[in-house]
Amino acid sequence: MQNFDYKTPTRLIFGKESIEKLPSVMAQFGKRILLTYGGGSIKKIGLYDRVKELLKGYDIVELSGIQPNPKYDPSVLDGVRLCKEHNIDVILAVGGGSVLDCSKAIAAGACYDGDPWDLISYKVKAQRALPVVDILTLAATGSEYDTFGVISRTETNDKIGYGDPLLYPVASILDPVYTFSVSKKQTAAGCADAMNHTMEQYFTADTTLLNDGFCESMLRSLMVNVRKCLDNPEDYTARAEFMLCCTYGCNGILSLGNSPSGWPCHGIEHALSGYYDITHGEGLAIITPRWMRHILSERTLPRFVKYGINVFGIDASLPQQEIAEKAIDATYRFFESIGIPMHLREVGIDDSRIDEMAQHIADNEGLENAYVPLTKQDIKEILMASL
Amino acid sequence: MQNFDYKTPTRLIFGKESIEKLPSVMAQFGKRILLTYGGGSIKKIGLYDRVKELLKGYDIVELSGIQPNPKYDPSVLDGVRLCKEHNIDVILAVGGGSVLDCSKAIAAGACYDGDPWDLISYKVKAQRALPVVDILTLAATGSEYDTFGVISRTETNDKIGYGDPLLYPVASILDPVYTFSVSKKQTAAGCADAMNHTMEQYFTADTTLLNDGFCESMLRSLMVNVRKCLDNPEDYTARAEFMLCCTYGCNGILSLGNSPSGWPCHGIEHALSGYYDITHGEGLAIITPRWMRHILSERTLPRFVKYGINVFGIDASLPQQEIAEKAIDATYRFFESIGIPMHLREVGIDDSRIDEMAQHIADNEGLENAYVPLTKQDIKEILMASL
Repeated sequence: MQNFDYKTPTRLIFGKESIEKLPSVMAQFGKRILLTYGGGSIKKIGLYDRVKELLKGYDIVELSGIQPNPKYDPSVLDGVRLCKEHNIDVILAVGGGSVLDCSKAIAAGACYDGDPWDLISYKVKAQRALPVVDILTLAATGSEYDTFGVISRTETNDKIGYGDPLLYPVASILDPVYTFSVSKKQTAAGCADAMNHTMEQYFTADTTLLNDGFCESMLRSLMVNVRKCLDNPEDYTARAEFMLCCTYGCNGILSLGNSPSGWPCHGIEHALSGYYDITHGEGLAIITPRWMRHILSERTLPRFVKYGINVFGIDASLPQQEIAEKAIDATYRFFESIGIPMHLREVGIDDSRIDEMAQHIADNEGLENAYVPLTKQDIKEILMASL
Repeated sequence: MQNFDYKTPTRLIFGKESIEKLPSVMAQFGKRILLTYGGGSIKKIGLYDRVKELLKGYDIVELSGIQPNPKYDPSVLDGVRLCKEHNIDVILAVGGGSVLDCSKAIAAGACYDGDPWDLISYKVKAQRALPVVDILTLAATGSEYDTFGVISRTETNDKIGYGDPLLYPVASILDPVYTFSVSKKQTAAGCADAMNHTMEQYFTADTTLLNDGFCESMLRSLMVNVRKCLDNPEDYTARAEFMLCCTYGCNGILSLGNSPSGWPCHGIEHALSGYYDITHGEGLAIITPRWMRHILSERTLPRFVKYGINVFGIDASLPQQEIAEKAIDATYRFFESIGIPMHLREVGIDDSRIDEMAQHIADNEGLENAYVPLTKQDIKEILMASL
């Protein structure tokens, strides 16, 4: 078991009508709010009006139009500018992981005099950040309970996971009702995202019985509940458990003491959505089973056997290699069964830039230190198998 | 799924030599420290000297002799007095759950002008508390990651679980090596304590697949690892995983969104150790299987079946009633197998005060609201069956 130093100070305010606590949460931070959101779905579901009504008396400046795979330019830069111009006290992010990720980068950039990219690219360590509160409308990324934000810079195809302990949201308001209107496509992609977060922690060299059990519980719960959410988008209980699962995805609680895994599927997927702007969860679902097949070996076999038995209920008396292969097949078929396109071609990616992407990943993602180290050639083979 | 409002801001500094971070942790709070500890085992293992060496330059006032089932008088009262006299900035608790529990009550009492019992008995809500840092030497109570302290007042046989969000330790330093010298008796009692914490959350009306899986993983890991700790007290990996399991016991993460269970075994055990000063974990181990048998009914059967299959691996094809009964037997036999005395008689409790204790529990523990409500008569029957 590895040493660790862990703290998640975020307050989770979870459940029906938890938004009622918004005024008391915001009252701690000051009167000037930057309200960030995406393309307007929060208006459709009445959430925008509700927020404005609850925060009467506050000075609210808005930054809207934050896109999936949120962009450094214009979103982060605009947000930082607004914070500085209006002397913002606190950011209120209303939306999914992209809005929140973008808001975290803004929170750090707003307290820094130089180019915010210095922080995101880890050239400079942030000394301070504005507090961020969020109201989540999409269960997927776990950004509501972690320090990370993933930011894309279009001109360089960079998609960087930026993390700093300053960036834990101070409070996350999680009302599953706000996820009722999430489309089947986004619900399935969210599931793949959260499942992959769990797998990235599960498939590593040094784990514990406890953490393995936590991860296996997450995967089983996500698989059961996403089907209920797809069958009946307004199934509160299923949406709620699904939302809580997603919240645990990246905050570390599933793998305290595990050896680092290197998050290889995320490393590869960041290039896919950095180059092609595809849905992150779909990219992960496509990559994951191909990565699994690529790293299956005598050394990794026991992990896959455990995974197959405990997550998919595969018969433990079968030969180990067969269990492992069935587990990988089951992973693929599960993603397919919830409607995720399982080939890169289906999301508009052909082989024309695979070599370039493999090089970019090999140069930037540190996958030589992954659970199973990946070279450019390995990455290329995984991408080719995903076409 | 129930609404919840959750936050655990405690920093966990976990692993070999994590004590090296002590000076940087303490530096945040000021120069005047109240160092609290128990009967001197921290001197035997060299921890006392190490702490003093690392904190050279600090003004350290000591409160020693804190007992298991820590006492309001003298420990809490002495600690509060010392804090006020010496204008203490921060409390450093070095020891097990009892030292830490006592330190939490001191932390609140030190910032209150009246009788500290006002706070512990919930007559007055604390407005402030001194920060508490701990270095844990016994894995059991989970106090290092929760808001609770349990305080005994001898003259009234009161043993009260006192909790307040102000009382989360700011940092818990958890080096499994400091638990190598814990006796077999205390290791087994710690296991029973942590297992019961998990069961108290698992056996309730409204749970989730996710939380059930978390709890089942905890129970399986505790059972496997306690055996390794008993066989080889210096098995670092087993002590480490065991310690982390115990840490999760009471901080809520195992049951976010579950309906409240009322923690019935704790309610009953608090009277046992309040009246007789027995080891808390042993009291819990004795009560738990008798409580289980008492509440087994058509309504609760499915919970016991799930527990039996997923925790003890009982054959799922057996009749449900049989699975449940085997699960309860297995619980009893497991505690017995790790050396816990499984009858009240063996820990010095006869039937002479059972009626009085049952009345005390019925009057004070709110068990009419438990998962299965318990009257005085129910409590009496459980105690009688435990003799």
